[in-house]
Amino acid sequence: MAAASQVFASHGYRGGSFQDVANVVGMSQTSLLHYFPTKRDLLLAVLEYRDTKLVNESGVPLDEGIVCEVLAQSEYNVGVPGLIELYTVLASESISPDHPGHAYFVARFGNLRAGYAEGFRALASEGRLRPGVDPDVAAASLVALWDGLQLQWLMAPGEVDVPAALRAYFDQVLTPTP
Amino acid sequence: MAAASQVFASHGYRGGSFQDVANVVGMSQTSLLHYFPTKRDLLLAVLEYRDTKLVNESGVPLDEGIVCEVLAQSEYNVGVPGLIELYTVLASESISPDHPGHAYFVARFGNLRAGYAEGFRALASEGRLRPGVDPDVAAASLVALWDGLQLQWLMAPGEVDVPAALRAYFDQVLTPTP
Repeated sequence: MAAASQVFASHGYRGGSFQDVANVVGMSQTSLLHYFPTKRDLLLAVLEYRDTKLVNESGVPLDEGIVCEVLAQSEYNVGVPGLIELYTVLASESISPDHPGHAYFVARFGNLRAGYAEGFRALASEGRLRPGVDPDVAAASLVALWDGLQLQWLMAPGEVDVPAALRAYFDQVLTPTP
Repeated sequence: MAAASQVFASHGYRGGSFQDVANVVGMSQTSLLHYFPTKRDLLLAVLEYRDTKLVNESGVPLDEGIVCEVLAQSEYNVGVPGLIELYTVLASESISPDHPGHAYFVARFGNLRAGYAEGFRALASEGRLRPGVDPDVAAASLVALWDGLQLQWLMAPGEVDVPAALRAYFDQVLTPTP
């Protein structure tokens, strides 16, 4: 999984081959095919591996509201640029409906928007949303901002501070905690 | 250029081949190689073509401040999903330092951040920035938000309204026009 993540992050799904992954892991292509009959199977396993790894290893609290969750996860992500690159490259490749990751990413974005919208509505019920802020627009914007910041940070790590910019966004849409 | 844009948008630079482009345009690979000696030359020409086309055809006013410019360009972009997909796919592929588009995108993001920061500073001098908004953070965030929204819109066009979300962002960081 680590080898496949590395290959797909550097070359994309289309540019990365079974042979590249087999080379990194020091295994024959035949042995690799025993575990993953197709490259598509390998991709879907890598996406699941990435999700599980990020959630399990980050230690991010999931029951303290979206602000805490998003800021903690974004701090953690700074230490795992390879997994962030993997996500960024595969998401864009998957725009194409014939890409084997397409359904995964369409569902992922839909779930993220729905989850964050719920988080913003919870904050609204506590009177924390600033006037005029729509929970659904804020949810899509938060996902977008985070993805776009990570892209810029991967290109020029010294020039973009992802957690700081996300904190600034929350400051703009939420009133200060009492 | 249109054929190469289409091929690189659908398959990425790495997944798209000279032969694919030659097929779309109805030209032999040899003839295509006469104009573009390497695939790298073709990529750089496509990126320049895209920039020129977007600026020339959009009719977006460039001297009326960033709010007007960004909103008008984002409205125009809704009508040219192929060019937006091309940009989104190539930008992510180009994170890798050995990708021939890497230098182009590093420079592009740097220039966009610098230009928008200047725009936000101009608004600050008119007293239009809300308290606590940093022009440099707002500039990186605007670029990020726009890129991320376009990615979600390309995945699910009916679910994300890019110009509306950008307008909401400006409302959050700027005070209303007097």
